[in-house]
Amino acid sequence: MPGLFISLEGIDGSGKSTQGKRLAESLRALGQTVTLTREPGGSPGAEEIRRLVLEGATDRWSAETEILLFTAARRDHLEKTIRPALARGEVVISDRFADSTRIFQGITRGDLSQIVDRLHELMIGVEPDLTLLFDLDPATGLSRATARAGKELRFEDMGLAFQQKARAGFLALAAQHPRFRVVDADGDPDTVAARVWQVVSAALGQGRA
Amino acid sequence: MPGLFISLEGIDGSGKSTQGKRLAESLRALGQTVTLTREPGGSPGAEEIRRLVLEGATDRWSAETEILLFTAARRDHLEKTIRPALARGEVVISDRFADSTRIFQGITRGDLSQIVDRLHELMIGVEPDLTLLFDLDPATGLSRATARAGKELRFEDMGLAFQQKARAGFLALAAQHPRFRVVDADGDPDTVAARVWQVVSAALGQGRA
Repeated sequence: MPGLFISLEGIDGSGKSTQGKRLAESLRALGQTVTLTREPGGSPGAEEIRRLVLEGATDRWSAETEILLFTAARRDHLEKTIRPALARGEVVISDRFADSTRIFQGITRGDLSQIVDRLHELMIGVEPDLTLLFDLDPATGLSRATARAGKELRFEDMGLAFQQKARAGFLALAAQHPRFRVVDADGDPDTVAARVWQVVSAALGQGRA
Repeated sequence: MPGLFISLEGIDGSGKSTQGKRLAESLRALGQTVTLTREPGGSPGAEEIRRLVLEGATDRWSAETEILLFTAARRDHLEKTIRPALARGEVVISDRFADSTRIFQGITRGDLSQIVDRLHELMIGVEPDLTLLFDLDPATGLSRATARAGKELRFEDMGLAFQQKARAGFLALAAQHPRFRVVDADGDPDTVAARVWQVVSAALGQGRA
Protein backbone atom coordinates (compact mmCIF):
# COMPACT_ATOMS: atom_id res chain seq x y z
CA MET A 1 0.00 0.00 0.00
CA PRO A 2 1.32 3.49 -0.79
CA GLY A 3 1.10 5.97 2.07
CA LEU A 4 -2.34 6.91 3.31
CA PHE A 5 -3.11 10.38 4.68
CA ILE A 6 -5.96 10.56 7.21
CA SER A 7 -7.04 13.80 8.89
CA LEU A 8 -9.20 14.11 11.98
CA GLU A 9 -11.48 17.12 12.19
CA GLY A 10 -14.22 18.46 14.42
CA ILE A 11 -15.01 21.05 17.06
CA ASP A 12 -13.04 21.30 20.28
CA GLY A 13 -13.77 18.50 22.72
CA SER A 14 -15.01 16.12 20.01
CA GLY A 15 -12.45 13.47 20.99
CA LYS A 16 -10.16 13.68 17.95
CA SER A 17 -6.91 13.37 19.91
CA THR A 18 -8.00 10.38 21.98
CA GLN A 19 -9.39 8.64 18.91
CA GLY A 20 -6.27 9.44 16.88
CA LYS A 21 -4.12 7.60 19.43
CA ARG A 22 -6.47 4.62 19.45
CA LEU A 23 -6.63 4.46 15.67
CA ALA A 24 -2.82 4.56 15.49
CA GLU A 25 -2.64 1.66 17.97
CA SER A 26 -5.15 -0.40 15.98
CA LEU A 27 -3.27 0.17 12.72
CA ARG A 28 0.08 -0.64 14.35
CA ALA A 29 -1.43 -3.88 15.69
CA LEU A 30 -2.03 -4.79 12.03
CA GLY A 31 1.64 -4.15 11.25
CA GLN A 32 1.22 -0.68 9.74
CA THR A 33 3.81 2.01 10.39
CA VAL A 34 1.90 5.07 11.56
CA THR A 35 2.94 8.71 11.95
CA LEU A 36 0.53 10.38 14.36
CA THR A 37 0.80 14.14 14.12
CA ARG A 38 -1.22 17.29 14.72
CA GLU A 39 -1.92 20.82 13.55
CA PRO A 40 -1.10 23.52 14.12
CA GLY A 41 2.33 21.97 14.65
CA GLY A 42 3.61 18.54 13.77
CA SER A 43 7.19 19.57 12.93
CA PRO A 44 9.68 21.54 15.06
CA GLY A 45 9.21 24.76 13.05
CA ALA A 46 5.44 24.43 12.91
CA GLU A 47 5.29 23.86 16.69
CA GLU A 48 7.07 27.21 17.14
CA ILE A 49 4.53 28.88 14.89
CA ARG A 50 1.78 27.16 16.92
CA ARG A 51 3.01 28.83 20.09
CA LEU A 52 3.03 32.19 18.34
CA VAL A 53 -0.57 31.75 17.18
CA LEU A 54 -2.22 30.04 20.11
CA GLU A 55 -0.70 31.82 23.10
CA GLY A 56 -1.49 35.41 24.01
CA ALA A 57 -4.68 37.45 23.61
CA THR A 58 -7.45 36.16 21.32
CA ASP A 59 -7.37 39.33 19.21
CA ARG A 60 -3.58 39.43 18.98
CA TRP A 61 -3.66 38.61 15.26
CA SER A 62 -6.25 39.48 12.63
CA ALA A 63 -7.97 36.54 10.95
CA GLU A 64 -5.90 37.21 7.81
CA THR A 65 -2.57 37.12 9.67
CA GLU A 66 -3.71 33.99 11.49
CA ILE A 67 -4.50 32.32 8.15
CA LEU A 68 -0.99 33.13 6.91
CA LEU A 69 0.64 31.79 10.09
CA PHE A 70 -1.41 28.58 10.00
CA THR A 71 -0.55 28.13 6.33
CA ALA A 72 3.17 28.67 7.05
CA ALA A 73 2.96 26.04 9.80
CA ARG A 74 1.09 23.68 7.47
CA ARG A 75 3.66 24.09 4.72
CA ASP A 76 6.46 23.20 7.15
CA HIS A 77 4.47 20.28 8.56
CA LEU A 78 3.79 18.98 5.06
CA GLU A 79 7.45 19.27 3.96
CA LYS A 80 9.11 17.96 7.11
CA THR A 81 6.66 15.37 8.46
CA ILE A 82 3.73 14.41 6.23
CA ARG A 83 5.33 14.04 2.78
CA PRO A 84 8.40 12.11 4.02
CA ALA A 85 6.17 9.67 5.96
CA LEU A 86 3.87 9.13 2.97
CA ALA A 87 6.93 8.59 0.77
CA ARG A 88 8.02 5.82 3.16
CA GLY A 89 4.58 4.22 2.68
CA GLU A 90 3.30 5.03 6.17
CA VAL A 91 -0.17 5.90 7.35
CA VAL A 92 -0.20 9.54 8.47
CA ILE A 93 -2.91 10.54 10.94
CA SER A 94 -3.10 14.29 11.46
CA ASP A 95 -5.19 15.73 14.28
CA ARG A 96 -6.56 18.67 12.22
CA PHE A 97 -5.42 19.79 8.77
CA ALA A 98 -6.61 22.40 6.25
CA ASP A 99 -10.33 21.92 6.96
CA SER A 100 -9.80 23.44 10.41
CA THR A 101 -8.48 26.61 8.77
CA ARG A 102 -11.43 26.60 6.37
CA ILE A 103 -13.75 26.58 9.38
CA PHE A 104 -11.98 28.46 12.16
CA GLN A 105 -10.50 31.24 10.05
CA GLY A 106 -12.61 30.92 6.90
CA ILE A 107 -16.15 31.16 8.24
CA THR A 108 -16.33 31.87 11.96
CA ARG A 109 -14.61 35.28 11.92
CA GLY A 110 -16.36 36.73 8.88
CA ASP A 111 -16.34 35.31 5.38
CA LEU A 112 -12.75 34.65 4.46
CA SER A 113 -13.40 31.32 2.70
CA GLN A 114 -12.16 32.56 -0.65
CA ILE A 115 -8.88 33.76 0.83
CA VAL A 116 -8.41 30.46 2.69
CA ASP A 117 -9.14 28.44 -0.44
CA ARG A 118 -6.88 30.47 -2.73
CA LEU A 119 -4.05 30.41 -0.22
CA HIS A 120 -4.42 26.65 0.20
CA GLU A 121 -4.35 26.13 -3.55
CA LEU A 122 -1.28 28.35 -3.94
CA MET A 123 0.86 27.12 -1.03
CA ILE A 124 -0.39 23.66 0.08
CA GLY A 125 -2.36 21.97 -2.71
CA VAL A 126 -2.73 18.65 -0.89
CA GLU A 127 -5.84 17.09 0.66
CA PRO A 128 -6.04 14.01 2.88
CA ASP A 129 -7.14 10.71 1.33
CA LEU A 130 -9.66 10.32 4.13
CA THR A 131 -11.05 12.85 6.62
CA LEU A 132 -12.90 11.71 9.73
CA LEU A 133 -15.27 14.37 11.02
CA PHE A 134 -16.01 13.82 14.71
CA ASP A 135 -19.49 15.24 15.01
CA LEU A 136 -20.79 16.24 18.43
CA ASP A 137 -23.28 18.57 20.08
CA PRO A 138 -21.26 21.77 20.68
CA ALA A 139 -22.44 22.12 24.30
CA THR A 140 -20.98 18.67 25.09
CA GLY A 141 -17.77 19.48 23.21
CA LEU A 142 -17.34 22.78 24.97
CA SER A 143 -17.75 21.32 28.44
CA ARG A 144 -15.19 18.59 27.61
CA ALA A 145 -12.76 21.12 26.12
CA THR A 146 -12.92 23.69 28.91
CA ALA A 147 -12.43 20.94 31.52
CA ARG A 148 -9.00 20.12 30.12
CA ALA A 149 -7.91 23.52 28.70
CA GLY A 150 -4.44 24.84 29.52
CA LYS A 151 -3.01 28.07 28.25
CA GLU A 152 -4.04 27.46 24.65
CA LEU A 153 -7.52 28.86 24.94
CA ARG A 154 -8.06 30.55 21.64
CA PHE A 155 -11.06 28.77 20.20
CA GLU A 156 -12.70 27.48 23.35
CA ASP A 157 -12.79 31.10 24.51
CA MET A 158 -15.09 32.01 21.70
CA GLY A 159 -18.14 30.36 23.21
CA LEU A 160 -21.08 28.21 22.21
CA ALA A 161 -22.38 30.21 19.23
CA PHE A 162 -18.90 29.99 17.72
CA GLN A 163 -18.78 26.20 18.19
CA GLN A 164 -22.26 25.84 16.70
CA LYS A 165 -21.20 27.80 13.63
CA ALA A 166 -18.07 25.62 13.39
CA ARG A 167 -20.08 22.39 13.61
CA ALA A 168 -22.44 23.51 10.86
CA GLY A 169 -19.45 24.51 8.75
CA PHE A 170 -17.78 21.14 9.15
CA LEU A 171 -20.99 19.29 8.23
CA ALA A 172 -21.36 21.46 5.13
CA LEU A 173 -17.75 20.70 4.08
CA ALA A 174 -18.34 16.99 4.66
CA ALA A 175 -21.36 17.11 2.38
CA GLN A 176 -19.23 18.63 -0.41
CA HIS A 177 -16.16 16.38 -0.35
CA PRO A 178 -16.26 12.59 -0.82
CA ARG A 179 -13.07 12.17 1.28
CA PHE A 180 -15.12 12.91 4.45
CA ARG A 181 -16.68 10.33 6.77
CA VAL A 182 -18.86 11.70 9.58
CA VAL A 183 -18.36 9.81 12.86
CA ASP A 184 -20.85 10.22 15.70
CA ALA A 185 -18.57 11.37 18.54
CA ASP A 186 -21.16 11.11 21.30
CA GLY A 187 -20.51 8.14 23.59
CA ASP A 188 -17.68 6.59 25.58
CA PRO A 189 -14.24 6.25 23.93
CA ASP A 190 -14.68 2.50 23.22
CA THR A 191 -17.95 3.06 21.40
CA VAL A 192 -16.52 5.90 19.30
CA ALA A 193 -13.32 3.90 18.59
CA ALA A 194 -15.45 1.04 17.24
CA ARG A 195 -17.23 3.48 14.91
CA VAL A 196 -13.88 4.89 13.74
CA TRP A 197 -12.50 1.44 13.08
CA GLN A 198 -15.51 0.47 11.01
CA VAL A 199 -15.05 3.53 8.80
CA VAL A 200 -11.27 3.21 8.47
CA SER A 201 -11.18 -0.51 7.83
CA ALA A 202 -13.83 -0.06 5.12
CA ALA A 203 -11.70 2.69 3.55
CA LEU A 204 -8.53 0.57 3.78
CA GLY A 205 -10.39 -2.34 2.25
CA GLN A 206 -11.20 -0.16 -0.78
CA GLY A 207 -7.64 1.14 -1.10
CA ARG A 208 -7.59 4.90 -1.06
CA ALA A 209 -10.89 6.35 0.14
CA MET B 1 -0.99 66.22 2.56
CA PRO B 2 -2.41 62.74 2.98
CA GLY B 3 -0.03 60.13 4.35
CA LEU B 4 2.97 59.21 2.24
CA PHE B 5 4.43 55.70 2.24
CA ILE B 6 8.15 55.45 1.39
CA SER B 7 10.04 52.15 1.33
CA LEU B 8 13.82 51.73 1.35
CA GLU B 9 15.22 48.76 -0.53
CA GLY B 10 18.60 47.37 -1.51
CA ILE B 11 21.10 44.67 -0.75
CA ASP B 12 22.57 44.20 2.72
CA GLY B 13 25.06 46.90 3.69
CA SER B 14 23.64 49.43 1.23
CA GLY B 15 23.03 51.96 4.01
CA LYS B 16 19.22 51.86 4.10
CA SER B 17 18.91 51.99 7.88
CA THR B 18 21.33 54.90 8.35
CA GLN B 19 19.71 56.83 5.52
CA GLY B 20 16.22 56.05 6.83
CA LYS B 21 17.07 57.72 10.14
CA ARG B 22 18.55 60.76 8.40
CA LEU B 23 15.58 61.10 6.07
CA ALA B 24 13.21 60.91 9.05
CA GLU B 25 15.20 63.68 10.79
CA SER B 26 15.11 65.90 7.70
CA LEU B 27 11.36 65.45 7.30
CA ARG B 28 10.75 66.11 11.00
CA ALA B 29 12.80 69.30 10.71
CA LEU B 30 10.21 70.42 8.16
CA GLY B 31 7.40 69.74 10.65
CA GLN B 32 6.34 66.35 9.25
CA THR B 33 5.27 63.59 11.59
CA VAL B 34 7.24 60.51 10.57
CA THR B 35 6.85 56.84 11.46
CA LEU B 36 10.16 55.11 10.82
CA THR B 37 9.70 51.35 10.73
CA ARG B 38 11.28 48.22 9.28
CA GLU B 39 10.65 44.78 7.88
CA PRO B 40 10.55 42.04 8.74
CA GLY B 41 9.03 43.46 11.91
CA GLY B 42 7.64 46.92 12.59
CA SER B 43 4.85 45.83 14.96
CA PRO B 44 5.07 43.70 18.13
CA GLY B 45 3.63 40.60 16.42
CA ALA B 46 5.72 41.03 13.29
CA GLU B 47 8.89 41.40 15.38
CA GLU B 48 8.13 38.01 16.95
CA ILE B 49 7.75 36.50 13.48
CA ARG B 50 11.04 38.20 12.51
CA ARG B 51 12.85 36.34 15.29
CA LEU B 52 11.33 33.08 14.11
CA VAL B 53 12.49 33.65 10.53
CA LEU B 54 15.91 35.24 10.97
CA GLU B 55 17.38 33.26 13.85
CA GLY B 56 18.48 29.65 13.56
CA ALA B 57 19.97 27.74 10.62
CA THR B 58 19.77 29.19 7.10
CA ASP B 59 17.91 26.14 5.81
CA ARG B 60 15.51 25.98 8.73
CA TRP B 61 12.57 27.00 6.55
CA SER B 62 11.93 26.33 2.87
CA ALA B 63 11.65 29.39 0.64
CA GLU B 64 7.86 28.83 0.47
CA THR B 65 7.44 28.74 4.26
CA GLU B 66 9.66 31.80 4.57
CA ILE B 67 7.46 33.66 2.05
CA LEU B 68 4.39 32.82 4.14
CA LEU B 69 6.05 33.95 7.38
CA PHE B 70 7.25 37.22 5.84
CA THR B 71 3.78 37.82 4.41
CA ALA B 72 2.20 37.15 7.83
CA ALA B 73 4.62 39.64 9.39
CA ARG B 74 3.90 42.17 6.63
CA ARG B 75 0.14 41.84 7.10
CA ASP B 76 0.49 42.53 10.83
CA HIS B 77 2.89 45.43 10.18
CA LEU B 78 0.46 46.92 7.66
CA GLU B 79 -2.56 46.60 9.97
CA LYS B 80 -0.95 47.69 13.21
CA THR B 81 1.66 50.27 12.13
CA ILE B 82 1.58 51.43 8.50
CA ARG B 83 -2.13 51.92 7.80
CA PRO B 84 -2.87 53.71 11.11
CA ALA B 85 0.08 56.10 10.56
CA LEU B 86 -0.99 56.86 6.97
CA ALA B 87 -4.55 57.43 8.20
CA ARG B 88 -3.16 60.06 10.60
CA GLY B 89 -1.52 61.77 7.61
CA GLU B 90 2.05 60.81 8.57
CA VAL B 91 5.01 59.96 6.39
CA VAL B 92 5.83 56.27 6.85
CA ILE B 93 9.39 55.20 6.03
CA SER B 94 9.82 51.43 6.00
CA ASP B 95 13.29 49.89 5.87
CA ARG B 96 12.34 47.11 3.42
CA PHE B 97 8.83 46.13 2.27
CA ALA B 98 7.41 43.69 -0.29
CA ASP B 99 10.18 44.22 -2.87
CA SER B 100 12.62 42.51 -0.50
CA THR B 101 10.43 39.41 -0.55
CA ARG B 102 10.20 39.63 -4.34
CA ILE B 103 14.01 39.54 -4.47
CA PHE B 104 15.19 37.46 -1.50
CA GLN B 105 12.52 34.77 -1.68
CA GLY B 106 11.19 35.32 -5.20
CA ILE B 107 14.33 35.09 -7.31
CA THR B 108 17.43 34.19 -5.33
CA ARG B 109 16.32 30.76 -4.12
CA GLY B 110 14.83 29.50 -7.38
CA ASP B 111 12.01 31.07 -9.33
CA LEU B 112 9.19 31.71 -6.91
CA SER B 113 8.24 35.14 -8.30
CA GLN B 114 4.76 34.06 -9.28
CA ILE B 115 4.01 32.71 -5.83
CA VAL B 116 5.35 35.88 -4.20
CA ASP B 117 3.27 38.08 -6.52
CA ARG B 118 0.05 36.11 -6.12
CA LEU B 119 0.44 35.99 -2.35
CA HIS B 120 1.10 39.73 -2.23
CA GLU B 121 -1.97 40.44 -4.32
CA LEU B 122 -4.15 38.15 -2.16
CA MET B 123 -2.99 39.18 1.32
CA ILE B 124 -1.27 42.60 1.14
CA GLY B 125 -2.36 44.47 -2.00
CA VAL B 126 -0.55 47.72 -1.09
CA GLU B 127 2.58 49.27 -2.64
CA PRO B 128 4.58 52.22 -1.37
CA ASP B 129 4.06 55.63 -2.99
CA LEU B 130 7.82 55.94 -3.39
CA THR B 131 10.59 53.31 -3.21
CA LEU B 132 14.22 54.34 -2.82
CA LEU B 133 16.56 51.68 -4.13
CA PHE B 134 20.02 52.04 -2.57
CA ASP B 135 22.23 50.67 -5.28
CA LEU B 136 25.75 49.54 -4.41
CA ASP B 137 28.48 47.19 -5.57
CA PRO B 138 27.68 43.91 -3.75
CA ALA B 139 31.29 43.40 -2.59
CA THR B 140 31.18 46.76 -0.79
CA GLY B 141 27.76 45.99 0.67
CA LEU B 142 28.83 42.59 1.87
CA SER B 143 31.95 43.87 3.65
CA ARG B 144 29.85 46.57 5.38
CA ALA B 145 27.13 44.06 6.35
CA THR B 146 29.42 41.35 7.71
CA ALA B 147 31.34 43.96 9.77
CA ARG B 148 28.22 44.75 11.80
CA ALA B 149 26.34 41.43 11.68
CA GLY B 150 24.97 39.96 14.90
CA LYS B 151 22.99 36.77 15.18
CA GLU B 152 20.69 37.60 12.29
CA LEU B 153 22.94 36.29 9.55
CA ARG B 154 20.52 34.77 7.11
CA PHE B 155 21.13 36.69 3.90
CA GLU B 156 24.69 37.86 4.49
CA ASP B 157 25.58 34.19 4.92
CA MET B 158 24.62 33.49 1.35
CA GLY B 159 27.68 35.15 -0.16
CA LEU B 160 28.64 37.41 -3.03
CA ALA B 161 26.92 35.59 -5.91
CA PHE B 162 23.67 35.81 -3.95
CA GLN B 163 24.09 39.57 -3.39
CA GLN B 164 24.91 40.08 -7.08
CA LYS B 165 21.75 38.27 -8.09
CA ALA B 166 19.80 40.37 -5.59
CA ARG B 167 21.25 43.64 -6.92
CA ALA B 168 20.36 42.73 -10.51
CA GLY B 169 16.86 41.76 -9.36
CA PHE B 170 16.32 45.07 -7.58
CA LEU B 171 17.49 47.04 -10.63
CA ALA B 172 15.13 45.05 -12.86
CA LEU B 173 12.20 45.76 -10.51
CA ALA B 174 13.11 49.45 -10.45
CA ALA B 175 13.02 49.53 -14.25
CA GLN B 176 9.48 48.09 -14.20
CA HIS B 177 7.80 50.27 -11.59
CA PRO B 178 7.58 54.09 -11.73
CA ARG B 179 7.43 54.32 -7.92
CA PHE B 180 11.17 53.46 -7.77
CA ARG B 181 14.05 55.96 -7.57
CA VAL B 182 17.56 54.49 -7.77
CA VAL B 183 19.98 56.19 -5.35
CA ASP B 184 23.73 55.69 -5.74
CA ALA B 185 24.67 54.33 -2.29
CA ASP B 186 28.43 54.51 -2.79
CA GLY B 187 29.97 57.34 -0.77
CA ASP B 188 30.00 58.71 2.75
CA PRO B 189 26.67 59.06 4.60
CA ASP B 190 26.45 62.84 4.03
CA THR B 191 26.86 62.47 0.28
CA VAL B 192 24.24 59.70 0.08
CA ALA B 193 21.87 61.66 2.37
CA ALA B 194 22.09 64.63 0.00
CA ARG B 195 21.16 62.36 -2.93
CA VAL B 196 18.24 60.95 -0.96
CA TRP B 197 16.99 64.40 -0.05
CA GLN B 198 17.10 65.54 -3.66
CA VAL B 199 14.95 62.59 -4.71
CA VAL B 200 12.50 62.83 -1.82
CA SER B 201 12.04 66.59 -1.96
CA ALA B 202 11.36 66.34 -5.68
CA ALA B 203 8.79 63.61 -5.01
CA LEU B 204 7.18 65.66 -2.19
CA GLY B 205 7.08 68.68 -4.48
CA GLN B 206 5.04 66.69 -6.98
CA GLY B 207 2.68 65.31 -4.33
CA ARG B 208 2.52 61.55 -4.48
CA ALA B 209 5.31 60.08 -6.53
